[in-house]
Amino acid sequence: MQKQTRRSFIASALTLTATAGVAASAKSIMPMETKEKKQLVHHVFFWLKNPGSKEDLRKLLAGLQTLKKIETVKSMHIGIPAETEHRPVVDASYSASELMFFDDVEGQKVYQDHPIHQRFIEDCSELWERVVVYDAQDI
Amino acid sequence: MQKQTRRSFIASALTLTATAGVAASAKSIMPMETKEKKQLVHHVFFWLKNPGSKEDLRKLLAGLQTLKKIETVKSMHIGIPAETEHRPVVDASYSASELMFFDDVEGQKVYQDHPIHQRFIEDCSELWERVVVYDAQDI
Repeated sequence: MQKQTRRSFIASALTLTATAGVAASAKSIMPMETKEKKQLVHHVFFWLKNPGSKEDLRKLLAGLQTLKKIETVKSMHIGIPAETEHRPVVDASYSASELMFFDDVEGQKVYQDHPIHQRFIEDCSELWERVVVYDAQDI
Repeated sequence: MQKQTRRSFIASALTLTATAGVAASAKSIMPMETKEKKQLVHHVFFWLKNPGSKEDLRKLLAGLQTLKKIETVKSMHIGIPAETEHRPVVDASYSASELMFFDDVEGQKVYQDHPIHQRFIEDCSELWERVVVYDAQDI
């Protein structure tokens, strides 16, 4: 029994060492921002009332640009549907998208209540007919 | 007419100089990766057949981890719904999400056809009942 316990202990210790080794080597090859730091991902999709209006899209994109100034927005991507393959699971019907990274739920709340965000909603909400938001926490 | 043309030319030149100035100053304050580099954003949301099964979620998350190895995946976030405020526009009904960045449409195609991705679908597709994909091109 003593022997068994000792063997188990050694096995656990070896596993721990191996895990630490992998973590250390992963750290050295992967960029901190993208593959390790746990962030909150906030992705919003907008469907314009007039999807054919370039002027409405321009206004919406210009409005989205203002949101970058909010200090808790760590990074941001403004997008339009990409020219990827048409597959039944791909929803390419939206007009524009806003992808943001926050450090945490609190950072996202600061953004929601921020005057720049409120101003954006005031100026642009008449342009869209539908909005879908996904908030994901990195595992 | 000659005068008008010259004035227009000067005005254009001034505009160009001003634009270049703004671009240069923006470049110096914004991180390249996140606010300037135009990438393809691939965001996938999965709804499990058994949303209450921790084991099924664990299997799906483990399967998603394997996708990081595909060389055209520049960075990746695996997520679960965040604890943000419940609002009618927020869809927090999904089980897990996969957010990836590619350099371009071609990089995303390589990923789609890659044996690791095909293996993931083979191993995990029985777990989910619904998948929604959004592909966005940075503007």
